[in-house]
Amino acid sequence: MKNFIDNDFLLENETAKTLYNYAKDFPIIDYHCHISPKEIAEDRHFKNITELWLGGDHYKWRLMRQNSVDEKYITGSAPDRDKFQKWAETLEKAAGNPIYVWSHLELRRYFGYDGILNGMAAGEVWELCGEKLKGLSARKFIEMSNVELICTTDDPADDLRWHKVIAADAGFKVRVLPSFRPDKPLNIELDGFAGYISALSRAAETEINSFADLKTALIKRIEYFDALGCRTADHGLTKAIYSPCEEAEAERVFAAALRGEKINLSDAEKHKTALLIFLGGEYKKRGWVMQLHYGCDRNVNTKMFKELGPDTGLDCINPASPSAYLARLLDGFGDSLPKTIVYSLDPSENTAIDSISGCFSGVRHGAAWWFNDNKAGILNQLTSAANQGLLGSFTGMLTDSRSFLSYTRHEYFRRIFCNFLAGLAEGGEYPCDERALRKIVRGVCHGNAAEFFGF
Amino acid sequence: MKNFIDNDFLLENETAKTLYNYAKDFPIIDYHCHISPKEIAEDRHFKNITELWLGGDHYKWRLMRQNSVDEKYITGSAPDRDKFQKWAETLEKAAGNPIYVWSHLELRRYFGYDGILNGMAAGEVWELCGEKLKGLSARKFIEMSNVELICTTDDPADDLRWHKVIAADAGFKVRVLPSFRPDKPLNIELDGFAGYISALSRAAETEINSFADLKTALIKRIEYFDALGCRTADHGLTKAIYSPCEEAEAERVFAAALRGEKINLSDAEKHKTALLIFLGGEYKKRGWVMQLHYGCDRNVNTKMFKELGPDTGLDCINPASPSAYLARLLDGFGDSLPKTIVYSLDPSENTAIDSISGCFSGVRHGAAWWFNDNKAGILNQLTSAANQGLLGSFTGMLTDSRSFLSYTRHEYFRRIFCNFLAGLAEGGEYPCDERALRKIVRGVCHGNAAEFFGF
Amino acid sequence: MKNFIDNDFLLENETAKTLYNYAKDFPIIDYHCHISPKEIAEDRHFKNITELWLGGDHYKWRLMRQNSVDEKYITGSAPDRDKFQKWAETLEKAAGNPIYVWSHLELRRYFGYDGILNGMAAGEVWELCGEKLKGLSARKFIEMSNVELICTTDDPADDLRWHKVIAADAGFKVRVLPSFRPDKPLNIELDGFAGYISALSRAAETEINSFADLKTALIKRIEYFDALGCRTADHGLTKAIYSPCEEAEAERVFAAALRGEKINLSDAEKHKTALLIFLGGEYKKRGWVMQLHYGCDRNVNTKMFKELGPDTGLDCINPASPSAYLARLLDGFGDSLPKTIVYSLDPSENTAIDSISGCFSGVRHGAAWWFNDNKAGILNQLTSAANQGLLGSFTGMLTDSRSFLSYTRHEYFRRIFCNFLAGLAEGGEYPCDERALRKIVRGVCHGNAAEFFGF
Repeated sequence: MKNFIDNDFLLENETAKTLYNYAKDFPIIDYHCHISPKEIAEDRHFKNITELWLGGDHYKWRLMRQNSVDEKYITGSAPDRDKFQKWAETLEKAAGNPIYVWSHLELRRYFGYDGILNGMAAGEVWELCGEKLKGLSARKFIEMSNVELICTTDDPADDLRWHKVIAADAGFKVRVLPSFRPDKPLNIELDGFAGYISALSRAAETEINSFADLKTALIKRIEYFDALGCRTADHGLTKAIYSPCEEAEAERVFAAALRGEKINLSDAEKHKTALLIFLGGEYKKRGWVMQLHYGCDRNVNTKMFKELGPDTGLDCINPASPSAYLARLLDGFGDSLPKTIVYSLDPSENTAIDSISGCFSGVRHGAAWWFNDNKAGILNQLTSAANQGLLGSFTGMLTDSRSFLSYTRHEYFRRIFCNFLAGLAEGGEYPCDERALRKIVRGVCHGNAAEFFGF
Repeated sequence: MKNFIDNDFLLENETAKTLYNYAKDFPIIDYHCHISPKEIAEDRHFKNITELWLGGDHYKWRLMRQNSVDEKYITGSAPDRDKFQKWAETLEKAAGNPIYVWSHLELRRYFGYDGILNGMAAGEVWELCGEKLKGLSARKFIEMSNVELICTTDDPADDLRWHKVIAADAGFKVRVLPSFRPDKPLNIELDGFAGYISALSRAAETEINSFADLKTALIKRIEYFDALGCRTADHGLTKAIYSPCEEAEAERVFAAALRGEKINLSDAEKHKTALLIFLGGEYKKRGWVMQLHYGCDRNVNTKMFKELGPDTGLDCINPASPSAYLARLLDGFGDSLPKTIVYSLDPSENTAIDSISGCFSGVRHGAAWWFNDNKAGILNQLTSAANQGLLGSFTGMLTDSRSFLSYTRHEYFRRIFCNFLAGLAEGGEYPCDERALRKIVRGVCHGNAAEFFGF
Repeated sequence: MKNFIDNDFLLENETAKTLYNYAKDFPIIDYHCHISPKEIAEDRHFKNITELWLGGDHYKWRLMRQNSVDEKYITGSAPDRDKFQKWAETLEKAAGNPIYVWSHLELRRYFGYDGILNGMAAGEVWELCGEKLKGLSARKFIEMSNVELICTTDDPADDLRWHKVIAADAGFKVRVLPSFRPDKPLNIELDGFAGYISALSRAAETEINSFADLKTALIKRIEYFDALGCRTADHGLTKAIYSPCEEAEAERVFAAALRGEKINLSDAEKHKTALLIFLGGEYKKRGWVMQLHYGCDRNVNTKMFKELGPDTGLDCINPASPSAYLARLLDGFGDSLPKTIVYSLDPSENTAIDSISGCFSGVRHGAAWWFNDNKAGILNQLTSAANQGLLGSFTGMLTDSRSFLSYTRHEYFRRIFCNFLAGLAEGGEYPCDERALRKIVRGVCHGNAAEFFGF
């Protein structure tokens, strides 16, 4: 029997232990996350573990709701100590949930707490964390995690001033780069599109009266991001789409949106297709990596959404064949297809996505994402990626997180990955050749991302 | 090597054995099955093992057909002994099929037979079971299985008289409650709908001339069921649907159906959506649990269906994205959403369903159902449920069966569940804390269902 | 720790070793492949390992592209030795990919090379294989593999002359039979259909001016194939379809196609449905097995397809619910449904397909196909097939390959299968009864295919 999260956590044989011992020291390249550059620049402090853990983590909120905890202890006005108590009592029921493991990894790695958090221990943990937090901060967490590079997620109209502040600060060695996330100019069917275009126009210092103008403005913003070190763009799509149209049609749809008209789904897909393909070409010129995230159905609980707003735990997998058009879309880029990483939220499509990405040079299947970021989900993605392609070329883990503590997910991933690879070797499916195995580990934990993104 | 179905069957480590030793004694709450209250009331006896095993079990019929057995030995007129011989010869080929295990568990637990059933042993088993059956009956099987409570499945127009007979019989201690299953008033597109409404009208002792009348009648029947202890309603949907409409529209569709007109798919979905949401509100008022089963394509072999009728092994999983509207439907209930358990027949949607149910308080993903009620299917459902939510809140197993012997499926489930949980603990992903582990076992094997349904 | 591909490769317990020791000697019935009868008849020799391995194997080409190898080393004009070097360097990254295992199995079984192929060893392997290839040939590979029977894949208009040559050659004992693959008469929407009908007309020596004539011509070709020992027909469908129509409608669509008109998707599905059902009846009359392969999206990379043509690694899984109509289609055959094997490319549909095939006597789910032909894919298919039906009736492995070396895939499959079955026995889910286990092994590795196809 193994002890809970011991040194050999998730490492089931000797080769796994050897490989993880090698893997653990590579610095982290977090090429996709949602942490706030402002909080890094200002080196945010946290007054207690509730603020740190429960302030914005909708993964935890969902579990509390499933435990029938009253919303006042989740996103409401209850005292922080009481909220933490409710969380600790909920956590005990979450056997097999990655949050159970992540929470304890965070307590161990950042707070030196080796016990088990449950309702009884909540007081002790509250005290300990409160004490330790006096000496901790955003930058401390990042430094403790051996992070080499962070890519935040930024709107094209963002002035990126916090990135400039961080870059100018010689006291902080970690590179913090922006990522270009043009969801707003793509989502032409949403309220507020015309207003956003005005903001983009100001940011780009150019008039936007046409689809052609929009492209000009976006090129200016891409150049601005590029000058600050940006190497990647990210896109969140409800599903994989492909609806090509003539330039005149794209102009017609854009003009209607500028006039404030409601854009229907069919026209919106035309706009998105045209704009995505244009953007792909711009990314390609600059060697950027295009990330495509899709398959998420957002804010599906209307009643709670009205009370709480977005990113509050009301999102789910969209089970309506979201990959059906992925091959069409990738093909539609033609010569404009940049290096690309595809992530789908529906795990039943792993093999299909791997088979599609194998048809296009420079297209990779990304790490298990969100609802799939757990041991089973990671193993499914690795198994499929290995079966269909080159495990040795996999670009590896990212946090996709809003939290400064989520770097423990890299430890979690590396342990699972090393154990997976070691299982192939110890099972006789790959030679137990330490040189070859280390090469794969080095690539997946560090080198492949560095090379693919050009950091 | 382990012996076939020994004491440690499916228990792969010491923690698993300890947990199962604790789990095995909890009485069974079978909150969803299809056994006949009449047969319980009359304490049905069975003349031989063929009548008991092959009289109505379409799981077994399918396997015999796959073994090219002539239909006369399956549902036809061949002598019972010959049918049993064909079954025994088929069973030997069913390695890895849960029916192989269930059949032998049933022989061990109810008949004391420890051997292996195959073509050669068929005569011996036939004799032994025939002898034992003289002292066995419906109630004996239930009592031998340590059953505490049974929820049958009943039409709203049913008079529930057998439930009254059972409740009035002091000699039988097991609670047998009705479940409300309003498929017939929902399936407005099927032949016989108008005739059914007449029957419902008589049962409810109220005229039904409108959709509003239908609702009134159903409230009366819900009250009738409630008075007899009913705590849950069940619904069988071909797929998850959501097609909201105005009340006037629902009235229009209902009026057409009452006139005997054929209702098209689009109108049928409007009726179903409107009626389901209404019913949800009524369930909620009474604290009932709404069960939603969907994803089954029934009677797909037209030729055999014409000969044999429904429930004869001609049903399959509907692979046409049956969960696409699940989030919409749950959202559509708004404040009327009762406690709900969702079951889909398509196992590739487990993660999607878990992600959807996590967006709505009081919505749970049900146990692996029908084609998924096997070790791999159960483990997939448990893994997904644990990864996405709170394993400790899972409402656990049900039989969904027409047979009095199917309580061995609870043993099968509990062994798999205890082994799964023990695997987390012995693998270092959850503490080997017996108190915490027992709490989860107690909940999943008994307490959670009792609490969720309010038995 | 196990050595790489040792004697006990993939065999995890003693029962597995015992079963594989029994399984390994059964001759291979390769009832579905794409090797060239001409190359068998002429006993093709290969000048070096590049010609043999990289001449047409798009599985390997895809991996090289994912390794950013320039196309000139893949399908281009680079020297063979250089291509092999690039392949060897790519292979090292393919941990967990079946091609890693297959390649080394082929080196061991046909070339006696026990080392590891990587960039460093490429020269040594090149020399060794070059030397050995002087004494090897198509027939040698087949004989070394203990093959009993091969079914090639042949167009209805093919004159099958190479099959006659092989059959007349007393020096070659392996039976090489044609399979009937009428994709061209089915794919009425494709360019060249009318031209193909002319060729078919000549082959059948009958005028084809109507859909009725087409059926007459196909009957003549079926009789021609049957006379040469054909026992099976194969069909490649993009997805499962079912669009029944009147005979007059089929005539209308066919007439339009003969006039060279472009046939739309809706009409094409009518033609395909009508023709498939007709063909099914003809197969049934002759006891042939109908194979249905679907779920493949072909040539999805337009740019590379224009350069390289079909079968160059540009195909993928079609994730758009390709099984939605499978039950309808099988039902549509009615009394004309022949013995059938169904293969889908989308592994998330395994359970659905097993549940559908269980509704129709004589319909089997085929072995894991193409993108699923790997350890995980095979285990998923076996697990689902066992859970839903009779593992003991499974028709087992086929190569589906263009290569004479792919018979090692049978070794790979048999090892996985024996280990799967042994796992059930050693895990206590099936008795460790060697007689019963051997019977299942014998059936799956040889007897079931022989019996089902009637070889």
